[in-house]
Amino acid sequence: MTEQIVEQSATQLSDDVHAILARARRASRRMAGANRAWKDKGLRAIAEALLANQDRILAANLQDLAAGKANGTSAAMLDRLTLTKQRVQGLADALENLATLPDPVGNVVRGATLPNGLRMRQVNVPLGVVAAIYEARPNVTVDIAGLALKSGNAVVLRGGTAAAHTNEALLTILRDALDAVGLPADAVQSVDKYGREGANVLMRARGEVDVLIPRGGRELIQTVVRNASVPVIETGEGNVHIFIDSSAPEDMCVEILLNSKTQRPSVCNTVETLLVHKDATVLPAVLKALSDAGVRLHVDERVQAVLPAGVTGFPATDEDWATEYMDLDLAVKMVDSLPDAIKHIRTWSTGHTEAILTNDLANAERFIAEIDSAAVIVNASTRFTDGSELGLGAEVGISTQKLHARGPMGLGELTTTKWIVQGEGQIRA
Amino acid sequence: MTEQIVEQSATQLSDDVHAILARARRASRRMAGANRAWKDKGLRAIAEALLANQDRILAANLQDLAAGKANGTSAAMLDRLTLTKQRVQGLADALENLATLPDPVGNVVRGATLPNGLRMRQVNVPLGVVAAIYEARPNVTVDIAGLALKSGNAVVLRGGTAAAHTNEALLTILRDALDAVGLPADAVQSVDKYGREGANVLMRARGEVDVLIPRGGRELIQTVVRNASVPVIETGEGNVHIFIDSSAPEDMCVEILLNSKTQRPSVCNTVETLLVHKDATVLPAVLKALSDAGVRLHVDERVQAVLPAGVTGFPATDEDWATEYMDLDLAVKMVDSLPDAIKHIRTWSTGHTEAILTNDLANAERFIAEIDSAAVIVNASTRFTDGSELGLGAEVGISTQKLHARGPMGLGELTTTKWIVQGEGQIRA
Repeated sequence: MTEQIVEQSATQLSDDVHAILARARRASRRMAGANRAWKDKGLRAIAEALLANQDRILAANLQDLAAGKANGTSAAMLDRLTLTKQRVQGLADALENLATLPDPVGNVVRGATLPNGLRMRQVNVPLGVVAAIYEARPNVTVDIAGLALKSGNAVVLRGGTAAAHTNEALLTILRDALDAVGLPADAVQSVDKYGREGANVLMRARGEVDVLIPRGGRELIQTVVRNASVPVIETGEGNVHIFIDSSAPEDMCVEILLNSKTQRPSVCNTVETLLVHKDATVLPAVLKALSDAGVRLHVDERVQAVLPAGVTGFPATDEDWATEYMDLDLAVKMVDSLPDAIKHIRTWSTGHTEAILTNDLANAERFIAEIDSAAVIVNASTRFTDGSELGLGAEVGISTQKLHARGPMGLGELTTTKWIVQGEGQIRA
Repeated sequence: MTEQIVEQSATQLSDDVHAILARARRASRRMAGANRAWKDKGLRAIAEALLANQDRILAANLQDLAAGKANGTSAAMLDRLTLTKQRVQGLADALENLATLPDPVGNVVRGATLPNGLRMRQVNVPLGVVAAIYEARPNVTVDIAGLALKSGNAVVLRGGTAAAHTNEALLTILRDALDAVGLPADAVQSVDKYGREGANVLMRARGEVDVLIPRGGRELIQTVVRNASVPVIETGEGNVHIFIDSSAPEDMCVEILLNSKTQRPSVCNTVETLLVHKDATVLPAVLKALSDAGVRLHVDERVQAVLPAGVTGFPATDEDWATEYMDLDLAVKMVDSLPDAIKHIRTWSTGHTEAILTNDLANAERFIAEIDSAAVIVNASTRFTDGSELGLGAEVGISTQKLHARGPMGLGELTTTKWIVQGEGQIRA
């Protein structure tokens, strides 16, 4: 009897999620037909509504924060969960910025008049229904919704339970704002109330979800990749390397390492392993500067042997080569040659970003050619692997996969293409 | 005891397939570093070797054909399995053609000098290891290998058991030809001898296979999509529609329907359902012409009522709207309006190709905007959804998915991109 009830309720839940996806599909068709001016009006309306309703948002956020504290949530997690007036202003500003960007929809990828007179063009069109599964960062709710709407899609969200009150408040505000400008409220929906099971239905809804974007830690992303049967774009895992060649000038090495490691250690484009050529004389100065900046150094035996006075090195193991610390920690290893550095990177890299610091042209070219990562950098900070820094305007995430999108993803990566062929009776010979 | 042996052998098989993939990865790095001239030399060497060894190929093919006949294989399947001197010449010609095409590798997608002086460019690079699972069509062995090599990849093949002898002969010839010009023989490998289990290991080798392309019937493709955890590109399922609007001229309708249905009924861009506006006076002439050409018409009641004399109509059911006949069969349905036609297409289409025949500009524009398929055609045959016809030079397949590639896929779709950033010490502020 009990089992039967559970089964019925699982069926009901699945039906409910599929009904949400059907509404998203219908809304996606209206969004696809909305021109840029209309979509930008929607984005600006949401920005205004966020500011006008910030008391309500912050009150909901306080509920989530209180629950989080009661559950013993870590300080770092609580910080990610927290919204403030300043952070709400930041979300509104980001939407205003999105409204200033060109529309990726309608862009002509290629076009030609064929020998038989047919006019062919391949045009960017919205993907349709974008789903996102993310952890307790309520800013992602607004962020992903804005990007999806600007690119003419509908979005179905699954935020974490920890941010449930905040996300619910945000969702209501977003939907009301869309409705007020004549855009479909169902272009932004959530499956949050169906919990983990709702997320599972979302991951398996082939043909109903056009792309699923997981946002969060490694564990969340890997769970989604393993369980999803809908198309997924993996983002953000960055075990980033810098190789200092023997010819690299000291000042540049010190500045780039400090910037790549300490400017914002918790993000995916921060450096995690430093490889140093055995003949590089700059190593002691670099290690001293990093140590002075509070970086904990995890070093192999050869580096241990040349540590400058007053600098501590913790013995590195294979686990260090594999770890994305996302903190003020850096693994350091000495190598005999560029090929040895490339071999180490091939073994341990997640394919996000790798950099070489060198004054040797042939080595720079070889590094660019042989390193198979989304971004390869010569003589600059690894922190430049970023959509805004590289001129994409807005960033959906940084893809570490090879299909569809690789590296920083802009609005264009939330579109697909349609081939349009026009004639006056042409047939194939 | 027996179980233990089986388990050891399964482990051994898995180890063997992973070893093949490791060799493919190493070969892919050498292929990625080969310039166009070298790769084209390899393609031409393969073409020559195929012609020089055609007796050996045809002898192996006869073995497969004899086994097929003994197993009671259908005539259509035997035809696909058959190689002749002419077909081998066709394979060699296709490779010679590939050698004349531009190299997709190294193409600069975008580039800029950023305000801080960084030079950024996003460049096409090979995907790496391409896998293909296909049915007993030995031509695919050469076809996919050629496309993968031209785009700088290594390929791991799994052909059907029915073509085992032919594929083995082809593989040896391909590998020897690569070796003779100094390209890695391991750029073309097969897991055929590991049977179905080998295919399963291939489908689950995340991180070792960069893209898996299934080629064959619906069942093969769906099996791969359901079971693969590596990235897959779905190709070729085409439940293609043509809508005849009330304003479409008769001559054009007759010619386009005949061409779309009868020119090559067994391929994915042939029309499968005809939707006709209730006021289209051209319907009888179109049906008469199709019937005279030997097309079996599966019609709804309204079409049944207006069939011209001497034309037979079989009653259509929902199954007809869903079916990709790939034969001289056509489902025909009368609709009240363009929106009704769009609704029918949204319900039954596989998103491959849909066409409208009309002289009404607003209806043409609405059809283009609202039909969400890889190709949308106005006043031309559906047979034009084809890489060669649309000027791509060579065709990997026709993707019916939205991520990475949609519609005809050329060599470019066998590449990904790499972001290359070059500076002289820039750090992020």
